[in-house]
Amino acid sequence: MQEIKSATDYRLLLESRGALPEGFSTGFNRLKFVPAELGNGRQMEMNLSMLLLNEATDCFAGTFTRNLFPGAPVLLCRKRLENDKFRGIIINNKVANVCIKTGVEDSERVLAAAAEKLGCPPSQLMASSTGVIGWHLPVAEMIGAVGDVVENAEKDRSGNAYSLAERIMTTDSFPKLRSREVEGGRITAVAKGAGMIEPNMATMLCFVMTDLDISREYLREILPGIASETFNRISVDSDQSTSDMVIAASSRKKPCGNKDAFKQALYEVCSELAEDIVRNGEGTGHVIKVNVSGAASVEEACAIGKALVNSPLVKTAIAGNDPNVGRFASSIGDYCGNNGIPLQSDKVEIKLGGELILSDGGFRMDPEKESRLAAYMKETSMLPEHKGWPMHEKTVDIDINIGMGNSVSTIIGSDLTHEYVRENADYRT
Amino acid sequence: MQEIKSATDYRLLLESRGALPEGFSTGFNRLKFVPAELGNGRQMEMNLSMLLLNEATDCFAGTFTRNLFPGAPVLLCRKRLENDKFRGIIINNKVANVCIKTGVEDSERVLAAAAEKLGCPPSQLMASSTGVIGWHLPVAEMIGAVGDVVENAEKDRSGNAYSLAERIMTTDSFPKLRSREVEGGRITAVAKGAGMIEPNMATMLCFVMTDLDISREYLREILPGIASETFNRISVDSDQSTSDMVIAASSRKKPCGNKDAFKQALYEVCSELAEDIVRNGEGTGHVIKVNVSGAASVEEACAIGKALVNSPLVKTAIAGNDPNVGRFASSIGDYCGNNGIPLQSDKVEIKLGGELILSDGGFRMDPEKESRLAAYMKETSMLPEHKGWPMHEKTVDIDINIGMGNSVSTIIGSDLTHEYVRENADYRT
Repeated sequence: MQEIKSATDYRLLLESRGALPEGFSTGFNRLKFVPAELGNGRQMEMNLSMLLLNEATDCFAGTFTRNLFPGAPVLLCRKRLENDKFRGIIINNKVANVCIKTGVEDSERVLAAAAEKLGCPPSQLMASSTGVIGWHLPVAEMIGAVGDVVENAEKDRSGNAYSLAERIMTTDSFPKLRSREVEGGRITAVAKGAGMIEPNMATMLCFVMTDLDISREYLREILPGIASETFNRISVDSDQSTSDMVIAASSRKKPCGNKDAFKQALYEVCSELAEDIVRNGEGTGHVIKVNVSGAASVEEACAIGKALVNSPLVKTAIAGNDPNVGRFASSIGDYCGNNGIPLQSDKVEIKLGGELILSDGGFRMDPEKESRLAAYMKETSMLPEHKGWPMHEKTVDIDINIGMGNSVSTIIGSDLTHEYVRENADYRT
Repeated sequence: MQEIKSATDYRLLLESRGALPEGFSTGFNRLKFVPAELGNGRQMEMNLSMLLLNEATDCFAGTFTRNLFPGAPVLLCRKRLENDKFRGIIINNKVANVCIKTGVEDSERVLAAAAEKLGCPPSQLMASSTGVIGWHLPVAEMIGAVGDVVENAEKDRSGNAYSLAERIMTTDSFPKLRSREVEGGRITAVAKGAGMIEPNMATMLCFVMTDLDISREYLREILPGIASETFNRISVDSDQSTSDMVIAASSRKKPCGNKDAFKQALYEVCSELAEDIVRNGEGTGHVIKVNVSGAASVEEACAIGKALVNSPLVKTAIAGNDPNVGRFASSIGDYCGNNGIPLQSDKVEIKLGGELILSDGGFRMDPEKESRLAAYMKETSMLPEHKGWPMHEKTVDIDINIGMGNSVSTIIGSDLTHEYVRENADYRT
């Protein structure tokens, strides 16, 4: 990353990454509504956004939450993935449209209005929602506003995804936008999500656009694996939302000579966005990167890494810049012992910031190392009193060799700060 | 529970529960030591306690953490469970004696000094430690102090377990002590533990004493099951410590006519202590009781209940007195979807405080119910601004019917408050 000295520098950096692939445009509108469920008549504002392909494409793919209370847009998108053509997606915040009897129908009515304006079959459109679980979409207001969204998208000459990345934010602290030029074409992806960290809100949404001419089959073949190696290896608070989705589409405008290069670039874009999501989580004071090696399987490596980054004790220690290495060992021993993984404690090696802290069943700590590691954790902090975001993209690196096999995995998580509790407990007071 | 108006009332209540079974006594001492690992010469104080049987017994049992970095006392106790006789246990705080090469040997040296003073074989004694992981026991200082501990225990005429419950505390906010009179005898148990919530400290320790004449075999048969239905169904922060143990012993002084009545009383004592541990967790603002029914197996019922009480989003919502029911549904759907449990969302029923909040795949909320439930959560809060502990023993009750089978389980957890983060992140600053 180039040196960033201010939020303006960061915005310029994002815009420089934001060029849309050929054949894509975006549109927006804003509407007011009164959530019936609140009962207090309070008016709220909703952002309505659209990602539009100039022409319908057959090359699109999607991967979705495994939550068994999936939102209506997830149900709708899963079904429309089976269709021949895809023209675009309508995205709203504020209301997630989850556990609503009429949810799918509500989304369909909004899409039908957009399709009419576009002059395309409604079956070519998808919907994506994030917001409060249990509220009804304000369908009439959305239908009233969606015409302008479509019109703006059709007229869009910005050629940049920055606005889309910004409009789909809820409490995200900055837009998330990554791209790669590859094989003469481009992959640009935006994501939204503070890791289910916003009060009531949830949801990671990611939209990937490319102009490289790959086939529908190939895109659908590689997307789930890439999502599972990137977005599925992050955890802000261990909860998978009802509405998570990754939607990818290609306008197929540019020949793609090397599919492997495309796949690698897509992996990199998704991997960087995944880390952005963790870094951006409200309340995140440190990004924790756990490299697990020596595991018997990739699944085991992932699970051990997740156990570590989801341990409240590890998370709070890191929040406090405290190299409390006993908690690292304890959380690994806890997970393995309670999940039938026959770990031998004297084979485990743990490093923090590259320094050995445990091997041969004993800690390798001394007062000087303790001070060095505390300083390292302050250095990697993103809190304003240290080097607040976006001044750096540093991580707290934890390397764990389990000593049982050859499988590896990297898991990215965040610490647990007062800010997290404030956001999630205190928002009504 | 009788009405409690002050901490003094609560102390009197605990003392009234605290009578030791016949054949048991307790002793204490305090020592000063300088942890070598700190490197700053700071002196600390350690409590050394003993639970002593007047005569060695063959009736003793134990159950231990499944953490694969077990503390040295866990290793030592597991081995000594195989011995014929048990005379008592030496308990220290401040140093957990975990991941130390010489850990078992260090504990053995302290026990040998105690055994010499008592005039019994060292093999009849066990050790139990809680405190910082990775520090060495101050063996010389402990040997210097343990003689007085033994002498005090031999002279003890208090006949009450209150002092033991108090001395084994670390940051516990109150002593945990429960008992039952049953079949003409008595079961008295003390526990320590704030659910791995203290900075660096960890560990739930529980010591169960009885004078009822049950056999070694019977005690060992029932203890693991009772522990798994009580202590294993609580979660303050989802981490299982390196040093958890439950040790039970009988002096066999009184005939036991009805083994089932004994078993039921032991279950009740452990169940109450387990809830005390959650209620006492530093930072606990609400005790959450999740009754899961309609599960395909008890394991599934436990896992779903634990997923709910360990969800940071559910925990923070409850901390904020916020009936954010969407998070309840989402955490259940997340757990089941990611663990191969074929839950059907429209079969699930959820109640909060006895009120139906979700059924038939949709929420059953309205503004009035929302207000009632928010009031209910304030009413069950233990924070000083509401009705601070120990004024009540109320719980936030969540009932979940999964609609898949007939198995049930009750899981008890705590919310996630600023106080938790403060305790666990900020203690060095």
